[in-house]
Amino acid sequence: MMKKVVTLGEIMLRLSAPNYQKIVQAQSFDAVYGGGEANVAVSLAKFGLKSSFVTKLPQNALGTSAEQQLNRFGVSTEHVLYGGERLGIYFFEKGFSIRPSKVYYDRKNSAFAMSKVEEYDFDAIFADADWFHISGITPALNEELFQLTKKALETAKEKGLTTSCDLNYRSALWSFEKAREKMTELIKYVDVCIGIEPLTLLGEDGKDIKDQLPEEPRVEDYLSIMEQLHERYGIRYVAMTKRDHVSVNCNRLQAYLYDGRELYQSSEIVVDIIDRVGTGDAFSAGIIYSLISDYKPENAIEFATGCFALKHTIEGDANLIPISDVEKYMSRSFSINR
Amino acid sequence: MMKKVVTLGEIMLRLSAPNYQKIVQAQSFDAVYGGGEANVAVSLAKFGLKSSFVTKLPQNALGTSAEQQLNRFGVSTEHVLYGGERLGIYFFEKGFSIRPSKVYYDRKNSAFAMSKVEEYDFDAIFADADWFHISGITPALNEELFQLTKKALETAKEKGLTTSCDLNYRSALWSFEKAREKMTELIKYVDVCIGIEPLTLLGEDGKDIKDQLPEEPRVEDYLSIMEQLHERYGIRYVAMTKRDHVSVNCNRLQAYLYDGRELYQSSEIVVDIIDRVGTGDAFSAGIIYSLISDYKPENAIEFATGCFALKHTIEGDANLIPISDVEKYMSRSFSINR
Amino acid sequence: MMKKVVTLGEIMLRLSAPNYQKIVQAQSFDAVYGGGEANVAVSLAKFGLKSSFVTKLPQNALGTSAEQQLNRFGVSTEHVLYGGERLGIYFFEKGFSIRPSKVYYDRKNSAFAMSKVEEYDFDAIFADADWFHISGITPALNEELFQLTKKALETAKEKGLTTSCDLNYRSALWSFEKAREKMTELIKYVDVCIGIEPLTLLGEDGKDIKDQLPEEPRVEDYLSIMEQLHERYGIRYVAMTKRDHVSVNCNRLQAYLYDGRELYQSSEIVVDIIDRVGTGDAFSAGIIYSLISDYKPENAIEFATGCFALKHTIEGDANLIPISDVEKYMSRSFSINR
Amino acid sequence: MMKKVVTLGEIMLRLSAPNYQKIVQAQSFDAVYGGGEANVAVSLAKFGLKSSFVTKLPQNALGTSAEQQLNRFGVSTEHVLYGGERLGIYFFEKGFSIRPSKVYYDRKNSAFAMSKVEEYDFDAIFADADWFHISGITPALNEELFQLTKKALETAKEKGLTTSCDLNYRSALWSFEKAREKMTELIKYVDVCIGIEPLTLLGEDGKDIKDQLPEEPRVEDYLSIMEQLHERYGIRYVAMTKRDHVSVNCNRLQAYLYDGRELYQSSEIVVDIIDRVGTGDAFSAGIIYSLISDYKPENAIEFATGCFALKHTIEGDANLIPISDVEKYMSRSFSINR
Amino acid sequence: MMKKVVTLGEIMLRLSAPNYQKIVQAQSFDAVYGGGEANVAVSLAKFGLKSSFVTKLPQNALGTSAEQQLNRFGVSTEHVLYGGERLGIYFFEKGFSIRPSKVYYDRKNSAFAMSKVEEYDFDAIFADADWFHISGITPALNEELFQLTKKALETAKEKGLTTSCDLNYRSALWSFEKAREKMTELIKYVDVCIGIEPLTLLGEDGKDIKDQLPEEPRVEDYLSIMEQLHERYGIRYVAMTKRDHVSVNCNRLQAYLYDGRELYQSSEIVVDIIDRVGTGDAFSAGIIYSLISDYKPENAIEFATGCFALKHTIEGDANLIPISDVEKYMSRSFSINR
Amino acid sequence: MMKKVVTLGEIMLRLSAPNYQKIVQAQSFDAVYGGGEANVAVSLAKFGLKSSFVTKLPQNALGTSAEQQLNRFGVSTEHVLYGGERLGIYFFEKGFSIRPSKVYYDRKNSAFAMSKVEEYDFDAIFADADWFHISGITPALNEELFQLTKKALETAKEKGLTTSCDLNYRSALWSFEKAREKMTELIKYVDVCIGIEPLTLLGEDGKDIKDQLPEEPRVEDYLSIMEQLHERYGIRYVAMTKRDHVSVNCNRLQAYLYDGRELYQSSEIVVDIIDRVGTGDAFSAGIIYSLISDYKPENAIEFATGCFALKHTIEGDANLIPISDVEKYMSRSFSINR
Repeated sequence: MMKKVVTLGEIMLRLSAPNYQKIVQAQSFDAVYGGGEANVAVSLAKFGLKSSFVTKLPQNALGTSAEQQLNRFGVSTEHVLYGGERLGIYFFEKGFSIRPSKVYYDRKNSAFAMSKVEEYDFDAIFADADWFHISGITPALNEELFQLTKKALETAKEKGLTTSCDLNYRSALWSFEKAREKMTELIKYVDVCIGIEPLTLLGEDGKDIKDQLPEEPRVEDYLSIMEQLHERYGIRYVAMTKRDHVSVNCNRLQAYLYDGRELYQSSEIVVDIIDRVGTGDAFSAGIIYSLISDYKPENAIEFATGCFALKHTIEGDANLIPISDVEKYMSRSFSINR
Repeated sequence: MMKKVVTLGEIMLRLSAPNYQKIVQAQSFDAVYGGGEANVAVSLAKFGLKSSFVTKLPQNALGTSAEQQLNRFGVSTEHVLYGGERLGIYFFEKGFSIRPSKVYYDRKNSAFAMSKVEEYDFDAIFADADWFHISGITPALNEELFQLTKKALETAKEKGLTTSCDLNYRSALWSFEKAREKMTELIKYVDVCIGIEPLTLLGEDGKDIKDQLPEEPRVEDYLSIMEQLHERYGIRYVAMTKRDHVSVNCNRLQAYLYDGRELYQSSEIVVDIIDRVGTGDAFSAGIIYSLISDYKPENAIEFATGCFALKHTIEGDANLIPISDVEKYMSRSFSINR
Repeated sequence: MMKKVVTLGEIMLRLSAPNYQKIVQAQSFDAVYGGGEANVAVSLAKFGLKSSFVTKLPQNALGTSAEQQLNRFGVSTEHVLYGGERLGIYFFEKGFSIRPSKVYYDRKNSAFAMSKVEEYDFDAIFADADWFHISGITPALNEELFQLTKKALETAKEKGLTTSCDLNYRSALWSFEKAREKMTELIKYVDVCIGIEPLTLLGEDGKDIKDQLPEEPRVEDYLSIMEQLHERYGIRYVAMTKRDHVSVNCNRLQAYLYDGRELYQSSEIVVDIIDRVGTGDAFSAGIIYSLISDYKPENAIEFATGCFALKHTIEGDANLIPISDVEKYMSRSFSINR
Repeated sequence: MMKKVVTLGEIMLRLSAPNYQKIVQAQSFDAVYGGGEANVAVSLAKFGLKSSFVTKLPQNALGTSAEQQLNRFGVSTEHVLYGGERLGIYFFEKGFSIRPSKVYYDRKNSAFAMSKVEEYDFDAIFADADWFHISGITPALNEELFQLTKKALETAKEKGLTTSCDLNYRSALWSFEKAREKMTELIKYVDVCIGIEPLTLLGEDGKDIKDQLPEEPRVEDYLSIMEQLHERYGIRYVAMTKRDHVSVNCNRLQAYLYDGRELYQSSEIVVDIIDRVGTGDAFSAGIIYSLISDYKPENAIEFATGCFALKHTIEGDANLIPISDVEKYMSRSFSINR
Repeated sequence: MMKKVVTLGEIMLRLSAPNYQKIVQAQSFDAVYGGGEANVAVSLAKFGLKSSFVTKLPQNALGTSAEQQLNRFGVSTEHVLYGGERLGIYFFEKGFSIRPSKVYYDRKNSAFAMSKVEEYDFDAIFADADWFHISGITPALNEELFQLTKKALETAKEKGLTTSCDLNYRSALWSFEKAREKMTELIKYVDVCIGIEPLTLLGEDGKDIKDQLPEEPRVEDYLSIMEQLHERYGIRYVAMTKRDHVSVNCNRLQAYLYDGRELYQSSEIVVDIIDRVGTGDAFSAGIIYSLISDYKPENAIEFATGCFALKHTIEGDANLIPISDVEKYMSRSFSINR
Repeated sequence: MMKKVVTLGEIMLRLSAPNYQKIVQAQSFDAVYGGGEANVAVSLAKFGLKSSFVTKLPQNALGTSAEQQLNRFGVSTEHVLYGGERLGIYFFEKGFSIRPSKVYYDRKNSAFAMSKVEEYDFDAIFADADWFHISGITPALNEELFQLTKKALETAKEKGLTTSCDLNYRSALWSFEKAREKMTELIKYVDVCIGIEPLTLLGEDGKDIKDQLPEEPRVEDYLSIMEQLHERYGIRYVAMTKRDHVSVNCNRLQAYLYDGRELYQSSEIVVDIIDRVGTGDAFSAGIIYSLISDYKPENAIEFATGCFALKHTIEGDANLIPISDVEKYMSRSFSINR
């Protein structure tokens, strides 16, 4: 029976200046709809899982467009709420070479940001679901959404779902201190912790985990942190990515997975970039898919790193790569497929 | 010496679905920056007048882009304020034939909407200016902006400028009753009243002017109303347009100008439409230009109607037609200009 | 409880030369996926019904793209078969003014055309369904698909579904004589007969119905034919459209509905055309929606004609108009919706 | 044996602002290559005749591009000269509704304009040719090109070719008086005279032919002039078009052909316009094709008017319509060709 | 006197998803027409040779478009046959970085694939020709086309033409065994053998040549194979390319030419890729041009490698590079040419 | 008080083949307006300085468009002259990898090239100005413009402005000998000399400076030359850039600044290229800005090299990078700016 994953969060209209133009040059914007948890849902649907995304959308053409895009890529929107005033927007200026990309958020007062905990019917949302995924962005938006995240995680655990969280710390949304405090409250409901944001959390010794890391951390340094997280918060898996910038559009990637016993390390890959956004979400989806499919850890981290890397070559927020393409990537064949 | 006109209001990012697509089909949006008073400023600059637009813009790439577009078409932005959180946005779905156009506003909490009266230095703004133009949209946004409009008009009158107002009633922004009350308070500072919104005002007899108009008004009915406005509020000129819809993209146009003595009527014109937005602003600019240039009323209304009609054939919010093209239009020559 | 409609047929990749270019000028083709019964399914989904489309798609990127488009617009593809060699294609050269549109089909040997009756599980397909719709194109493709159509209709009737058929005679696919013979065999399973193709059928007197129609038929002539169809084949509703060409991209439209008692006639509408393809399918969807929703016949035919007319203003094969827009159209308001 | 037509003249790069933009809005220009005589050559090649275009092109990427476009549409360029400094350019701003189209020429000092009579080898150029066509634009460019035109016509007549000339008076290139003097010198070599420019010539009575025409000329007025031209200059056929502007992009068309005995009048056609440029050239090609194919005059003028009208629906300078489409047009069928 | 080359094969419509999109993202496809032997013909025409392409095209807008593109780039289509049902199509998904390109063929039942040997008049086709080129794709399509290839090669040899063949083994079209058997039958008519497909052939010892090659072959290994081919099959020249994938869009290239005595090796070049398709055809054209022009082998292989490498920077199937650009490349100057 | 810089030169319409197409493939051209000194003016305006560009433009839509673009990016055009016949044009074919870019100039007889010294009112032009910048292109166009350049420099010096010159030797415009002679005459009015064109000048020993440089010059070699220039011509600052081609679209950059005492060397940067045109102008603007702002030489050269490098990532002629982005670049942060 096909596994079902639920993700919850905000989906925004992304408006990108085309052809590496700066926004001040743009006469048009390319439009896609994306957001961390929605991107994870799309990627999982493309892998063939049942995938349901929960959010609140405004009842206008933009809300409909966002829903249509989710449906187009196979994501169920049956538990999406409708109402509120606006869809969040973000403007994207794609960088090149030595010119960094820029993101301008215009997401305040969105239908999702203004939604209330009691609007969400988690009994219906989690019916038949196996896994629940969330990110550290939603609780950062406001206190109500922090409560929403908490209640969602709590309920998911009660109902026996596996839970994952991409901690995803955004300094524009909250201070490091606040993030640490709030995420530490949520982390106890999380089975699988993704992202380098474990660093946001408190270490075993009550000190910032971040402070334990030397400037140029080696694998062993990460391992020690992950062991603490495992022990202190009962996290079953910790997965994280590492990115070195050869340039804005060429990055060197690697990723790690800790299963409570060992730290598995993917091979390293250099990738030229078409779209950098949503690559972390592709990684999360890769982790969820491989763990839900009972991959061995060493295969899971290779698979997830493949998802992570391949997403850099896909325009738009979401990873549209089927399993077969991830597998082909893992054989490193670069010839034309005829 | 070249005359200088100041306009004040909001400029927004307009995002239009291309090629008559519905928004739910759009993969990109064409981007221009527009707003009633900004459109008037652009048109006047294209006519060769000195033209200054006053607003508040956010200090980001969108604010810069809006300012760049004003500068591109010759409008001075030296008195533009910078700050606030966001630029207002509106989404535009261009209709066709029997399918009407749609506009979705997302303008709340914009830098301009949140700006304060005391931020504006009207001594500097009105230095060397001959004319001040405003619309009924700004006072409809909130009480602070109503006060801003009032102070601007008051100051302009004190400094000896001619003032014009395109009353422009928008039911989405305020109720008819509120509009009537507020606009009646402003109208006494206005020399030239544009738009069919005089109807929003109170008649001499204390009743709604609108109620005096039969269902299918004739020229005489308008005349009687304009005489009241002239007498009651001291308005020197009243100008208005009339539009019949042959279809969504084919309209029959005519316009009227009352100079306190007579009602001048333009010839009628049927126009196929490329962009319907900003046509009223083109008319306002035509009225301002012809009156500031001392055209005879019968020529002024023909000129303004030409501006009004020609704008329907120009993509974007603003009329980019130079004087010479309006004059060519008035000779009704449709051959290729080689 | 929301009603469910099933449609069955072929969906093709449509490749259109952009900007009214001739194909010999085109450097690119706009791509959408469409086909009569798929278009009906999309339109019904946009109206809010449950809508399921049944076909066979090749297991490649084009098959996936076709399915994605159906999903995007809310159509269920859970009963779509996968396999076969290719997706049918048609090239579209959009005409203008006095230059007619052209369609080049390249649909032979498609996955659907090569599919077998026994591949379809009608028990699953018709579970929970209320209505089944098909067209005269599928049976025209080959004998196997004629048998498929027949079995589908037979089974639908057995299971108590209402059935509709857009007879849609295409001279490129089969001869008039063959069409008449075969469609006469199918028509007994049809409750609602759509299109002017009733004329393909045999009249009560055993003569071609077509031969009974004078060159410039009046309403009464249609009525007499519909009465025959009702009596001879037990058809409950006959609906048909009429189109006069003012020019290639401006048509005058009207439609008729016969309910076994009276002939209801819609008002006439002149429409400028963005995309002529799929307008008949929009009409079918309008008929199905209004009958399944128990509209009175006089309202049903106005609603369906609104769908028919509005589709002319939508690019692509499928009608993306929600109910609210059809209703707005019926009030004939052409102003901007702000 | 297939007939061969030679045309001689200038081909320019045409740069058009896209999507009805004004040039001051354009961020890109659509590029085609065109010119009166080149357009005639393309149209004739599309009709299946052998067609050779003679000009001089610069040896750079633009010269190559112009030649490629001629070859693409089947025109032989074996007698094209290479050299000189630049390709002539013209900028095109397509009008709409009440806004006229504009053309800006930048053609001075082009390779063709600077070419010399002695560079052209008319023995080779006219080998196997049956017809030679030229326009009144080339002799207007400068004295050398006037001499080139004269020598070409003279040689063509000596070699027994039929000659045609689209007199095409352009006031931007020379004065009416100069045009009259020069064209009168050329006209004696012309068998088929096309365009309303016969009016440029001297009448039998030594007065301007133009002066003989009343303000609103009727068919009889044209007939009298054509009789004079026939008698005075030995012109065998005179063909001309008439155009009324319903609007900039909707014209009413008709055309006339005089064969030395009678005046044949085409039916009238109203056409919506995609591209107005080159319509006269399409008419010339229609006249040449129908006369070289021995059509009866009444059929020739209908065919040529069909070419003239259909070209209005084709983007670009040249008519890409095959014979079969002209014939279909003549049956006035506006349905989709499936 | 200019040399003339004839090539024979299939030309298809290539539809590419734009901007590195996956096909499941594409809303349009870029359209060019290409095929191995047609690409060779275009490249040779661009080098200034007489070049004639022989195929069979359907009599519709796509067949005409394919022919137009050949003509545009200077290829003669005077011996093209017309008829049959469809033009073959292939869909192209351009890869990037670590995501490989994909090609989906939809070429079955094309006009060329269904053509018969007796339709081709080789006396006319080879009149005045100096060289005949073919590839291993045509004989792989079906037995009739194998016979066509054989007859074409036989006749070309009889008439004294030089023959070349790009063996081009495609596993999707036939098995390795069948390819070996069939190509061995054809190879005796071939003077110049191009591609690494010599490996498809039988070695002198009756064993597969492929089996003689170590996993990481050195130059000497190739040499030994080429000597066998020379001796066993009388092949005068063997040319082959080598490609290492730095990434999907960055390759390291080198090529070899054996003249029956020595093996000449080009310098190595790393190239970033705009379009990978047709690069082997560009190499073939480089070999043909340099041998027909009597280049020394060491220059021939440098020239052909330049063609090969430069084609990677040209969008579309065919190499549009003139001789002068290949020569400039050989001087390795990367500055702007002003 | 904000500093004001005046630049003088030609601005042209640049027409670029899109998407790395060769010009012979292009169906459209992207249009921007640019020229060395205009580009410098735009960049300085973007840095927040007052910037005025002086030229002569034709009174047509292209002249207006050029002026609009200058205004859009904040450059004052109050001293632009209007008149003459045409705007200069250049066609740009962007190279890739191993295929070099090409520029085709069509600038003869432009309004600026035909302008006369006496048309320019330098009293007005230099009012309130602090700096005057010019390049070696204008004096190369013709003798009159050499005189214009000389008079401009002379007057600027008289009025106490700092002067800079980007010597910019173009072999297509004049011979090395003529350039040396003429530039030597101008150099005495120059305070800041930019570009590697100092080499055009005469050395202290009366020999070509160029001849003093070894084939692979080291920093010391440049230093010695700069000392000579400083001593012989009184140049206060000499700045120059160095470019190595990794490939056509990947360059290694470095730059030097000599202040009459020491040679400052920037760090080296490898940059991938979106648009190579105008990078030298961006460097000039960086030098002018940093010197006018009293940066220390070591900071000035880093800043200017940042401008130089970043411009390679901006489409179009002009650098649209604000100060803040140059500063961010100098911190070498390549992450997304959220």
